[in-house]
Amino acid sequence: MIKINENYLKLQAGYLFPEIGRRVSEFAENNPDADIIKLGIGDVTEPLCPAVIKAMHDAVDEMATSEGFHGYGPEQGYEFLTEAILANDFAPRGVKLDKSEIFISDGSKCDTGNIQEIFGLDNIVAVTDPVYPVYVDTNVMAGRTSNATEGGRYGGIVYMPCTAENNFVPELPSESVDMIYLCYPNNPTGATATKDQLKKWVDYARENKALILFDAAYEAFISDPNIPHSIYEIDGAEEVAIEFRSFSKTAGFTGTRCAFTVVPKALKAYTKAGEAIDVNAIWNRRHSTKFNGCSYITQKGAAAVYTPEGKEQIRNTINLYMDNASRIRKALTELGYNVYGGQNAPYVWLQAPEGMKSWEFFDAVLNKAHVVGTPGAGFGAAGEGYFRLSAFNKPEIVDEAMKRFAKI
Amino acid sequence: MIKINENYLKLQAGYLFPEIGRRVSEFAENNPDADIIKLGIGDVTEPLCPAVIKAMHDAVDEMATSEGFHGYGPEQGYEFLTEAILANDFAPRGVKLDKSEIFISDGSKCDTGNIQEIFGLDNIVAVTDPVYPVYVDTNVMAGRTSNATEGGRYGGIVYMPCTAENNFVPELPSESVDMIYLCYPNNPTGATATKDQLKKWVDYARENKALILFDAAYEAFISDPNIPHSIYEIDGAEEVAIEFRSFSKTAGFTGTRCAFTVVPKALKAYTKAGEAIDVNAIWNRRHSTKFNGCSYITQKGAAAVYTPEGKEQIRNTINLYMDNASRIRKALTELGYNVYGGQNAPYVWLQAPEGMKSWEFFDAVLNKAHVVGTPGAGFGAAGEGYFRLSAFNKPEIVDEAMKRFAKI
Repeated sequence: MIKINENYLKLQAGYLFPEIGRRVSEFAENNPDADIIKLGIGDVTEPLCPAVIKAMHDAVDEMATSEGFHGYGPEQGYEFLTEAILANDFAPRGVKLDKSEIFISDGSKCDTGNIQEIFGLDNIVAVTDPVYPVYVDTNVMAGRTSNATEGGRYGGIVYMPCTAENNFVPELPSESVDMIYLCYPNNPTGATATKDQLKKWVDYARENKALILFDAAYEAFISDPNIPHSIYEIDGAEEVAIEFRSFSKTAGFTGTRCAFTVVPKALKAYTKAGEAIDVNAIWNRRHSTKFNGCSYITQKGAAAVYTPEGKEQIRNTINLYMDNASRIRKALTELGYNVYGGQNAPYVWLQAPEGMKSWEFFDAVLNKAHVVGTPGAGFGAAGEGYFRLSAFNKPEIVDEAMKRFAKI
Repeated sequence: MIKINENYLKLQAGYLFPEIGRRVSEFAENNPDADIIKLGIGDVTEPLCPAVIKAMHDAVDEMATSEGFHGYGPEQGYEFLTEAILANDFAPRGVKLDKSEIFISDGSKCDTGNIQEIFGLDNIVAVTDPVYPVYVDTNVMAGRTSNATEGGRYGGIVYMPCTAENNFVPELPSESVDMIYLCYPNNPTGATATKDQLKKWVDYARENKALILFDAAYEAFISDPNIPHSIYEIDGAEEVAIEFRSFSKTAGFTGTRCAFTVVPKALKAYTKAGEAIDVNAIWNRRHSTKFNGCSYITQKGAAAVYTPEGKEQIRNTINLYMDNASRIRKALTELGYNVYGGQNAPYVWLQAPEGMKSWEFFDAVLNKAHVVGTPGAGFGAAGEGYFRLSAFNKPEIVDEAMKRFAKI
């Protein structure tokens, strides 16, 4: 008899975005004339930049000829892309990596979801709260947790609250943890971590032989020169951290699909008997057995992001989004909201009016301003009372949304 | 302390294709003038067809405009593709499926590797021998096996030998099994299964509440009208089978990456307490949590495979490969080899000369004919003494390879 993986039955039914979708659909049905503005899900709106478009057309043309056709590529990605990554994303920041430490993939959701597979089920997982749900859900599916409690938290996971009180960077945990998910610039809070703050975590991981899973999908939105873009800017991080990067937000690849994971060769994990195992080799085995490489055409597009034209073009788009974020911050601050993030990240995180819960505020914003945001409570218990607005939209639409906020 | 998933340490070091690569590199170094012909790895050689190229150019152009830009798509795939699949791959064969039963992905290697995650670790896995290594390796990684024995087999997996004696379609197992991997047309043997043969398996699965994981990646190469293309052509299979399809070999997408998995709503798996669980819903949860959709541009290309021009163009390419297979069969038969497959599949499976082992024959073919094939033993113990040749190459290169075979 075929048995199901019963860990899946522990998952909470109401995944955040489907519930938002349901409420928005219901509202739209009852208010067919309402012009709903979506600042909820973190999806980009600007087209792919001309350098990427040209590179992809060229790659499609190559695929039309016998000489230029590309079949199976290296599962780890083409060197033209890994080398561009090393030369542009890491070398200028003094981070020395080898191309064998870069694994190109079709997305950071996949990478951050899959990475836990290569580690033992007996590791204690620590996540921030609020948190990107994929980190938690994939550990539930694997069996590292017990059932969820009434508050939606799972037994066996250490939740580290991030609120205005700690500037949305968690304290070191008092209990022992093994796998620590950190995301900076943060989704959903828009917070960043300084070098000193990250150093504390790297030191903790080195002392405790813990692993940091560092999601840097939003690093391109950092404008403050003092904020690190990579965890490897911290000495010794290559011994304890895996880093996730993505072209999704950086270059508008949410529908085009390309990302990469850095697994340094200095990183070790351990057998129960204490033997040190090379994590890079194990991830390579996983990646080449359960993945078959990212599309050649897509990788050619991603490589064009690193050309001089590509860099300038994506910078213009990022600036457009960050101008949106800045105007959102200004408008909401003037309206008296407590506003966080939005300075080095495309997300603005605000506090709902005193005494109002996240979903109540969501409903109020939808009903009175016809604007869709994301309730902070959907990202975790410590997000209760907060609300996320995304800066991914056309400037005129963002401005219209802010005008309507005045009516709430 | 971060613990590794120790199941990975059970994996055999020598994955087949890297070992082939090593021997070929060594030979090439020692024989720099040798013109090596590769009929080893099953990668296509013909370019993408014009209909696909045009659709992908159009999709790239869409992505360059605000109006045509596509960000995150449905994780399950766009309806324009799922509907084309239903209308062309299934409806004409009398197979009724709903679009919610189709999951578009970036490849069948991923799908056949990932599918086991949603089932319990206590299921007994059955595979054919020889077998596509991904089925086995992903179950080893998950922890469904013990260490490998000297012969390379893993404890806890039921191996079902497929040899000339049973026409490469296995007998029903005498022990109880829960997850049965079948691949027809078969990689590596090129064998097909008739409706009667598949019906035996479907009946077995229904009687025993077992699950069939049916890999149909090569169905487009079937020319015999009596051979089923889908397991759902067998009555009741929708209650016990998941099917995997791919554009890789059908339409030359090995470097472009698109495939799909069929998970019928009638399919159930069970909790230890015996409760029936809807497998479609669980796979949907896994797919939308650990995957973020296949590239829009790629899906547009895949949909073009189903246009009248696309169908004709891919048919011409498939015919070219199958003409190759036919000439390989003829040449080897004339040379006195026992030859199998190659009639409804792009692989020819031959017996090495009496008393010769697979790797010995591999070395002989490489050294004497400068041709690379795949040693049957690399696919499993029952493949010992066999050898696989792929029909994916230019006709003139295939003919040259056959000329050289005469010298062995």
